[in-house]
Amino acid sequence: MIRHIVLFTWTDGATDEQKAAVADELRALIGVIPEIRSFTVGHDAGINQGNHDFAVVADFDTVDDYLVYRDHPRHQEVIAQRIKPILASRAAVQLGL
Amino acid sequence: MIRHIVLFTWTDGATDEQKAAVADELRALIGVIPEIRSFTVGHDAGINQGNHDFAVVADFDTVDDYLVYRDHPRHQEVIAQRIKPILASRAAVQLGL
Repeated sequence: MIRHIVLFTWTDGATDEQKAAVADELRALIGVIPEIRSFTVGHDAGINQGNHDFAVVADFDTVDDYLVYRDHPRHQEVIAQRIKPILASRAAVQLGL
Repeated sequence: MIRHIVLFTWTDGATDEQKAAVADELRALIGVIPEIRSFTVGHDAGINQGNHDFAVVADFDTVDDYLVYRDHPRHQEVIAQRIKPILASRAAVQLGL
């Protein structure tokens, strides 16, 4: 099992609609990429100062399945059209479980 | 349910022993803090360039349970004694699930 974790911060000018579109279009990947075993997407809860703004936690059976997700054309479209226009910073880890 | 996610990068001088001690002592919190529902800790798998080095994903039933973990004296000891001496950067999100 491989767990992909990525945290984003958004630019100051990012709108609520733009942030919501990232979450909606990432969640829709579940129906497009059957290799996804578990998928958690969402905005920071606002408990702590200094946090990143948004998180994705996605589980896959194998590294190859993760690579299908990473490189999938629809995923790459969401990155290019929804994430990159409002991206300030990104932190990621893949964990073997 | 609240999911706490944190990613670290380590200083260039951090040793394998120091990195392993972070993982070991964080995992041992499962036996000390019963509010932890699920706890995944580990080093980046090395699939992608530019990643952070280490991840923690911890689930709790409530925000209050997460705060017990966050502020627990033993957790604070691990942060002070094991994490901070080798910490280069940190990114975190708490997600309501």
